[in-house]
Amino acid sequence: MRIPIDRTSDVSLYRQLVDFLAGAMHTGELAPGTRLPATRELARDLGLARITVTTAYAELEADGLVEGRVGAGTFVLPPPPRPASLSARENAWPPWQLSLAAAAPAGPVVYGPDVIDLSTGVGDASRFPVDELRRTLAGVLRGEGLAALSYGDHRGDPALRATIARLLASQGLRTSAESVLVTSGSQQALALAAQVVLRPGDTVIVEGPTYGGALELFRSVGARPIGVPVDRDGMRVEELEPLLQRHHPRLIYTIPNFQNPTGSCLSARRRSELLALAERYNVPLLEDDFVGDLRYDGRAQPALKALDPGGRVLYASTFSKMLIPGLRIGFLVADGPVREAVAAAKHAHDMATSNLLQRALEAYVTVGRYRAHLRRSCRLYRVRRDAALAAVARHLPATTRVDPPSGGLFLWLRLPAEVSAAALLPEAVAAGMAFAPGGRFFPEPVDGDGCLRLNFAAQPPEVLERGIERLGRVLR
Amino acid sequence: MRIPIDRTSDVSLYRQLVDFLAGAMHTGELAPGTRLPATRELARDLGLARITVTTAYAELEADGLVEGRVGAGTFVLPPPPRPASLSARENAWPPWQLSLAAAAPAGPVVYGPDVIDLSTGVGDASRFPVDELRRTLAGVLRGEGLAALSYGDHRGDPALRATIARLLASQGLRTSAESVLVTSGSQQALALAAQVVLRPGDTVIVEGPTYGGALELFRSVGARPIGVPVDRDGMRVEELEPLLQRHHPRLIYTIPNFQNPTGSCLSARRRSELLALAERYNVPLLEDDFVGDLRYDGRAQPALKALDPGGRVLYASTFSKMLIPGLRIGFLVADGPVREAVAAAKHAHDMATSNLLQRALEAYVTVGRYRAHLRRSCRLYRVRRDAALAAVARHLPATTRVDPPSGGLFLWLRLPAEVSAAALLPEAVAAGMAFAPGGRFFPEPVDGDGCLRLNFAAQPPEVLERGIERLGRVLR
Repeated sequence: MRIPIDRTSDVSLYRQLVDFLAGAMHTGELAPGTRLPATRELARDLGLARITVTTAYAELEADGLVEGRVGAGTFVLPPPPRPASLSARENAWPPWQLSLAAAAPAGPVVYGPDVIDLSTGVGDASRFPVDELRRTLAGVLRGEGLAALSYGDHRGDPALRATIARLLASQGLRTSAESVLVTSGSQQALALAAQVVLRPGDTVIVEGPTYGGALELFRSVGARPIGVPVDRDGMRVEELEPLLQRHHPRLIYTIPNFQNPTGSCLSARRRSELLALAERYNVPLLEDDFVGDLRYDGRAQPALKALDPGGRVLYASTFSKMLIPGLRIGFLVADGPVREAVAAAKHAHDMATSNLLQRALEAYVTVGRYRAHLRRSCRLYRVRRDAALAAVARHLPATTRVDPPSGGLFLWLRLPAEVSAAALLPEAVAAGMAFAPGGRFFPEPVDGDGCLRLNFAAQPPEVLERGIERLGRVLR
Repeated sequence: MRIPIDRTSDVSLYRQLVDFLAGAMHTGELAPGTRLPATRELARDLGLARITVTTAYAELEADGLVEGRVGAGTFVLPPPPRPASLSARENAWPPWQLSLAAAAPAGPVVYGPDVIDLSTGVGDASRFPVDELRRTLAGVLRGEGLAALSYGDHRGDPALRATIARLLASQGLRTSAESVLVTSGSQQALALAAQVVLRPGDTVIVEGPTYGGALELFRSVGARPIGVPVDRDGMRVEELEPLLQRHHPRLIYTIPNFQNPTGSCLSARRRSELLALAERYNVPLLEDDFVGDLRYDGRAQPALKALDPGGRVLYASTFSKMLIPGLRIGFLVADGPVREAVAAAKHAHDMATSNLLQRALEAYVTVGRYRAHLRRSCRLYRVRRDAALAAVARHLPATTRVDPPSGGLFLWLRLPAEVSAAALLPEAVAAGMAFAPGGRFFPEPVDGDGCLRLNFAAQPPEVLERGIERLGRVLR
C-alpha cells in the first residue's frame, strides 16, 4: 500500500496515516470487509516505525472504523455516517484545465424502458448466436493458451487479415491481407485515417448530412468539416468542385452505400466523378462502408475502393454493425505509403487490438458464415424497413417526406415545415419514443433541424409501428 | 458480390466480369473451393443480363479456373501458374501519399527461437491462469448473454471502474469510479491525454531516457519531446525549471516508479518539487505508473496522483503488464474538466473498449486476487532481478555500470566507453541474444547509444544467465 506520507509536515505521521485510511473508508474506497495490510508490512512499505502503524490502527478501531480479529488481521467495518468535513473537497482547478471546460459530454443518451428508442445506430443483435461465440472463445483459449493472450502484430492477426481480404473479395473488393489494418471498430479506422492526414485547421469535405461520430472525430482533431448536399443518388458530386477550389480540403469523407443518415446510394456516374475529382485535386478519399452489404433491393454498387487505381481511397468497415456487436473490431484497407503511416498511428495510439478477440473472430468468421448471416439480416431488415415505411405513411402527417432506402439501417424524414426536431425530441420522449434529431448529422446543426433519423433495423415491426404512431401523435 | 462494372467502357460487360473474377482467383482472393454466386443472383445484383454472367462463367470454366457441379453451383479450382501480366500492378501513388513516405515501420522486432530476447517490455505471462480466464469469459457470456456484447458506456463498464478505484485505494491512491476512464491498454491512456493537451509544435517534457512508446506517441501528434536527465532518484527535477522557462511545455510526462528504462524511483523530495513546479508553471503532469506496484525492496512511494491537490495529475496504468497480457485494458485517472475532455476523445477515437473484455476483467479481478498475484509476481521477479545482476557482474566487462533497481522489469546498463549499443545489437543477435538499444529511449537517440536495457522479468534465471553470458562474449 503506497500511502502519501509527508515527512516535512507538522502533522504527525500516525495522524497522516489515520486521516488517509479513515478518508478512504468514508468514501467507500476501502470497502467494508477489506483486510488492512499487516502492521509490520505497512511499516516496512512506508518506512515508518511499526508502533506508528499500530497506534494508527488502534485509533481507527477506537473510532469504530476497523475491527481487529485475532490471528486474522484488521478489517474495515461498515462506515458510520460521513462527517460533513469530508463530504466536499473544494477543487480549484489549475488554469490549464479551464480551457478544456467547454468539452461537451459525449456518448449516447440512454432512455428508460418505456421509451421505444429508434435513435440508435446499430442493427438488431438479439438473434446473434452468443453460445457459438462463447464456444469459439473457449476453444481459442483452450487451443492456443497464452499465445491467444500475447501482444500480437499491431497491424492485426495475420490470419484474420487474410480472412477479411477473402471476405472483401467475395463481396467484390479485391485486396490483400497486407493492405488490411485491424482496428478497434470502424470508428478507430476513421480516427487513424484522420490523424494521419489531418492537422488542426484543415478542412475536410463531408456529406451534409453525414455520420455524427465522424463530425465529432474531425472536430476532435481540430479539423473543420464542410458539407456537400446529398440527394437520392448520394453526395451531389457536381457541387464538389467549387468547394475543392475554395477550401483546399485535406480529406473527403464519404459513405457511398446506404448513407448514414439518409440511406441514399451514390450513383455509378457520381462514383467515377468523385474519384476523378479526388485525383485532380489530390485529395484522399475516406470511404466508410459501414453497412455496404446490407442491401434489400436495387442494384449493387462497387465500393469506391474497388474502383481505385491505387492508393486514392482509404476504406473503413466493421463487423460490429451486423455480425458481432460489442467486440469492437473493424478494419481499414489502404495501399501506398499511407498504409505504413496508419499502422504506425495504430501502434502509437494503442499498440494493437486485443489479440484474443481477433483470434476468436478469426475462428468464428468464414466467408460462408458471413454470407449466411448477411442473407438472414437482409431478409429480416427488409421486412422491418417496409413496416417502418408503412407506419410512416399511416401515422405521420402527409407533408412528412421520406425517400425509401434500398438498404442500411435508417429512414431519414423531412418534417413538415416549421417543425424543429430538436424541440420535438423531448415531447417524443415524453410520449414514449426517441429519434435522432437531424442537427447532429450536419456540420452546421441548424441545417438539419427540420429532419430526423429513425433506425428501422433494431426493432421488430410491431414495436416500430408503435414508436412511429407515438411520433405521429406528437407531431399533430 | 459487388463487382465494379463500367458501363461506359469499351470493354464488354462479360469481359469485365471475367477479368475481375480471374484476377481475384489468380491472387488467391477467391480461394479454391469457394462457390461463386448463382448466375441469376449475380445478374440481379449487378443489373446485368443473366446471359452475360452465364457466358462469363462458361469462359472461366473453359480456362480451367472454375468447375460447374450440377445442382451444387460453380466452384473455384486451384489456380494455374500466374500469368506474368497480372503479377505486378505498377502503382503511381497520388502526390498526397508521397509526403507520408517517411513513416518508419512501427512495432516490435520478432526474433527467431534461437535468440534469447531480453528486449521486450512486459513481464512473464507463462504462469497466468488461462483456464481461469476462460471459465470467467464463458461465465460472463452465459450469465449476461448479449448484454456482454452491447456497446457499453464509453467511459468504461461502471462496475469495472469501481473495482479499479477500489484497487487503487487498496494500493494507496484514493480516487472514485467517476474519475476512472477505461482505455485500450495504458498506451491509449497516454494517447488520449496527449491528444487532449498537445497540439502540433508543442513541447513536452520527458525523462531522458524514457519509454520509447511515449516518444513515438508524442511525435505522432506532432509534439517535440525534450528530455530531463535521470539519476538513481528519478528525474533530476532540479534541472527542470530552466526548461520550463525556456520551452513553455504543454505537458510533463513522467514514470516516477521503477522508471522505464532505468528502473529508478523518484525520491519523495523530488515528488513534492515536481508537483510544485507543475503548479507554478501551469503544466499538466502525465504520470505513467505502469509497474508501480512491482516493488522488490526499499520503501513504497505514493503516486504523484495521490499527492495531487486536485486536477494537476493525469494518472495512467494498466493490467496488461502484470495481471493479464493481451487483453489490452488500461485506465486513466483524471479530475476536473480534463476528465470530460479525455472521455470525449475516447468516444471520438474508438467509441469504447470491448465491453466483453471489460466484463470478464471485472469478473476476474478482485482486490484479494490482485494482491495475491502481486505478491507472487514480486517473489518471482525479485529472484530474477538478482540473477540478472549476478550474471551482469559475472559476464560483462567490469566497466559496465548498472544501478540495481528496487522494482519493475528492467536493468539499464551503461556500456564500456566507445561501445555503441546500436552497432552491438546485430552482433548480439548473431550470438543468440537481443536487448533494447539505448537510443530508442531518448528524444535524441545519440544520447543513449552507450546504454542498453535488459528485461529481467520475462525469463527464468537460467535463461537470463545464458543470455547475459552471450552478451558478455560479444562485448569482449
